[in-house]
Amino acid sequence: MKKVLIAGATGAMGQKAVDLVNSLDGFEITAALAPHLTTENKADYHLAAEVKTYQQLAEIDDNVADIWIDFTLPNAVYADVKYALEHGMKPIVGTTGLTDDQQAELTQLSREKRVGGLIAANFGMSAVLLMKFAQEAAKYFPDVEIIEMHHGDKKDAPSGTALSTAKLIDQVRPAHETNPAETESLPGARGGDYHGIKIHAVRLPGYIAHEQVLFGGDGEALTIRQDSFDRQSFMNGVKVALEKVDQLSELVIGLENIL
Amino acid sequence: MKKVLIAGATGAMGQKAVDLVNSLDGFEITAALAPHLTTENKADYHLAAEVKTYQQLAEIDDNVADIWIDFTLPNAVYADVKYALEHGMKPIVGTTGLTDDQQAELTQLSREKRVGGLIAANFGMSAVLLMKFAQEAAKYFPDVEIIEMHHGDKKDAPSGTALSTAKLIDQVRPAHETNPAETESLPGARGGDYHGIKIHAVRLPGYIAHEQVLFGGDGEALTIRQDSFDRQSFMNGVKVALEKVDQLSELVIGLENIL
Amino acid sequence: MKKVLIAGATGAMGQKAVDLVNSLDGFEITAALAPHLTTENKADYHLAAEVKTYQQLAEIDDNVADIWIDFTLPNAVYADVKYALEHGMKPIVGTTGLTDDQQAELTQLSREKRVGGLIAANFGMSAVLLMKFAQEAAKYFPDVEIIEMHHGDKKDAPSGTALSTAKLIDQVRPAHETNPAETESLPGARGGDYHGIKIHAVRLPGYIAHEQVLFGGDGEALTIRQDSFDRQSFMNGVKVALEKVDQLSELVIGLENIL
Amino acid sequence: MKKVLIAGATGAMGQKAVDLVNSLDGFEITAALAPHLTTENKADYHLAAEVKTYQQLAEIDDNVADIWIDFTLPNAVYADVKYALEHGMKPIVGTTGLTDDQQAELTQLSREKRVGGLIAANFGMSAVLLMKFAQEAAKYFPDVEIIEMHHGDKKDAPSGTALSTAKLIDQVRPAHETNPAETESLPGARGGDYHGIKIHAVRLPGYIAHEQVLFGGDGEALTIRQDSFDRQSFMNGVKVALEKVDQLSELVIGLENIL
Repeated sequence: MKKVLIAGATGAMGQKAVDLVNSLDGFEITAALAPHLTTENKADYHLAAEVKTYQQLAEIDDNVADIWIDFTLPNAVYADVKYALEHGMKPIVGTTGLTDDQQAELTQLSREKRVGGLIAANFGMSAVLLMKFAQEAAKYFPDVEIIEMHHGDKKDAPSGTALSTAKLIDQVRPAHETNPAETESLPGARGGDYHGIKIHAVRLPGYIAHEQVLFGGDGEALTIRQDSFDRQSFMNGVKVALEKVDQLSELVIGLENIL
Repeated sequence: MKKVLIAGATGAMGQKAVDLVNSLDGFEITAALAPHLTTENKADYHLAAEVKTYQQLAEIDDNVADIWIDFTLPNAVYADVKYALEHGMKPIVGTTGLTDDQQAELTQLSREKRVGGLIAANFGMSAVLLMKFAQEAAKYFPDVEIIEMHHGDKKDAPSGTALSTAKLIDQVRPAHETNPAETESLPGARGGDYHGIKIHAVRLPGYIAHEQVLFGGDGEALTIRQDSFDRQSFMNGVKVALEKVDQLSELVIGLENIL
Repeated sequence: MKKVLIAGATGAMGQKAVDLVNSLDGFEITAALAPHLTTENKADYHLAAEVKTYQQLAEIDDNVADIWIDFTLPNAVYADVKYALEHGMKPIVGTTGLTDDQQAELTQLSREKRVGGLIAANFGMSAVLLMKFAQEAAKYFPDVEIIEMHHGDKKDAPSGTALSTAKLIDQVRPAHETNPAETESLPGARGGDYHGIKIHAVRLPGYIAHEQVLFGGDGEALTIRQDSFDRQSFMNGVKVALEKVDQLSELVIGLENIL
Repeated sequence: MKKVLIAGATGAMGQKAVDLVNSLDGFEITAALAPHLTTENKADYHLAAEVKTYQQLAEIDDNVADIWIDFTLPNAVYADVKYALEHGMKPIVGTTGLTDDQQAELTQLSREKRVGGLIAANFGMSAVLLMKFAQEAAKYFPDVEIIEMHHGDKKDAPSGTALSTAKLIDQVRPAHETNPAETESLPGARGGDYHGIKIHAVRLPGYIAHEQVLFGGDGEALTIRQDSFDRQSFMNGVKVALEKVDQLSELVIGLENIL
């Protein structure tokens, strides 16, 4: 039975992590960390009677957990992960806000301490697999465009996931020029351009978060699509991380790198 | 049995029309018009022994046909349709090139002669129904975007069908403002803009001609999509026109107006 | 300003109706009916100070409203609608459970009282439009199949909406035989069969409620798809009903019949 | 410059292969084999003046080519591949009809001769990538269904590609039970069942050959789709094989195994 500490256990994502671990065979929550968490209110957060509660790092008992799940805040995550690594707990981190330098430093620390772990910006399995498959397909189908669709309130376009997908494709696809003579009778009709990869952003009420990568070749097409209906989907990736973290010998950045 | 004359019978579309009428119960080809068509070569064009062949308008016998199908050339179509109306033949016209003035004049002539008929820019039933349904849905779903996808060789964007769809929607949808505060980190990501309706054009090899209209509302979405795999699809609309032309009392512009 | 009474105001759908009417210009909630609703707790249900609250029909004041929105229970809806019609309030009814006989009787009553209204099993605009468009398209594309996709917990297949769509198509499509010689190496691969219309039901976690109608013809395809992401979508149809109910001279069954 | 012999050069697929190799930098056709091919008619088959033509294996000159592309007939392919391997030409084989025993024997021969090559039932890159990605995704999304769509004339259901996809998924997905209590009000609505994986086959005119694999998980979905519009698409896979065959040390079965 693996022992798990959940940092940020009272937040929206933290609570989903609590429910996930409570539902899994082979894992148990032994500790939880959150600023206002107490012995009295822990049941409200679906934490069992035997779970130890802490409000700050300094209070945490030694050997209380094997794995550290972190859904906290940008200003807390660096100290959290450092603490986890130094105390032999494998971090699984969904909190954003670590700088590249901090990630590099923590990775170095993980090597010294020989403690594996994972930091991921996106724990949605469908989005992560879409990016992985899109990168692979682009080697064979250099003609590719991306369409992402989000709810009407999203202000920025294109989405971060769409742009990340384009960057991954750009790293591998053969030198390529798409239809240089094309013209637009409505400016923007051909979409945004990232190194020759066209990205189209749709914004409509009702939609949630969806991405399609469209590949075309002589006489055929390949389309990869993912739909995120609910942030619950992040827990699919956390579950995969829990199953794989024991096989990691250092801190890995990106869920796709442990699949 | 309705008698049909096919003008432009030796061209690519004319040949498809020949095959269509040959396959239909209740219709027979009685005459065909084309510059190089002769009694000797008519069998090569799937025309039966009893079909009369003409190389120019002046040769055509009176009462040779009830219906005139026209897939000729822009410089021939005006004289053809005028000839048909004046001789009591109901024209079904897929040839492009008539000016607005010519269309108005021919419509006036059709009223005087009391001869119905149809002129259509697009005989693809899926495209025509898509436009019709999109216009109707826009009354209830004012939030709408269009994605069209064509083969990589298409030079202009967006497609004529996509633009026509946007115009039809614009005629009916309630006053509407979509997400005014949105920003593009890649210019063009949000597509081309026709009166607030965003249009996205995808160009990829393998693709043929496809259009999607996406509607979004609170908690739901409606999508209408059409795919044209082959110009054979135009004959679906010609068949509908053949079945309905008897009910028309004047020349009608647009297949959607007889559905 | 139209005055609205909401029956079942404290239920899940009733609460969505309360929020809808509160958000609309030209309409105001003047009364609400629900078994446990009181002056004291009405604010908890987003009802303004001036809204009159009733726990049963007998308490309702004359002339308190022009329109009666009903999201109650099967055993209450008949008496509710009868009461509304007899007191000159136009009913908009989303509650299920009325028998065909009861619907006929209430429609007759609405004619006698000259009070319009609407009873609808489905207020989701995308589903209602899909059914309407599918029926219209089937006249031109008799080759059609239906795919519906729902969450993995749905026990019955196909969905009621898919079956209703097939029935509507069956009423209009030309006599038709699809590929009589086909064989299945896996029984069921070709789907369920409703009068020759194939219906395929997909059940997967993550999915919510989605339906596609696929039409095929020579060289082309037409697809109509609707996605219900959230029951909030029902309010789109209630809003349309509120806007149109004044134009109705009797009780109408089915949202599609007022579009 | 790699020298290529094309066996079956006058057939439909052979001709596509001729056009492909003629268009590629770094490869040249040096020889062609077909029963009726002659010096006189070779230009009709897009073969250049310097291409050597043969009507049977015994005529082939030594060292005439490095690579042997085979699109012949089931009764010729075994002898062809054996001949190629024995004479140091790397076979790329799209001809069907080899038994499992013949494949095993030829693979053994390729090891002895240290000549690489590829035998593939499907050279459509989109179909091959779909199968590869579907198998990978199933490790993380055990809930999966397959929808394939073909033209209305296809007699058997489901398609071979759909069944192959299900087999690949079945090899890897975790033990899994989908909604055991479900019921069908129309028999077949839930599709055909391959080891718990549901397969749905759509047959409609206009459609060509299309396959979708739908994965669902908590709050998200992943869909992989491929469309084959034209048999030209097979040449995309032949091109990849040409580029990779030099890296192979023995005969490989299946395009997916060299990607």
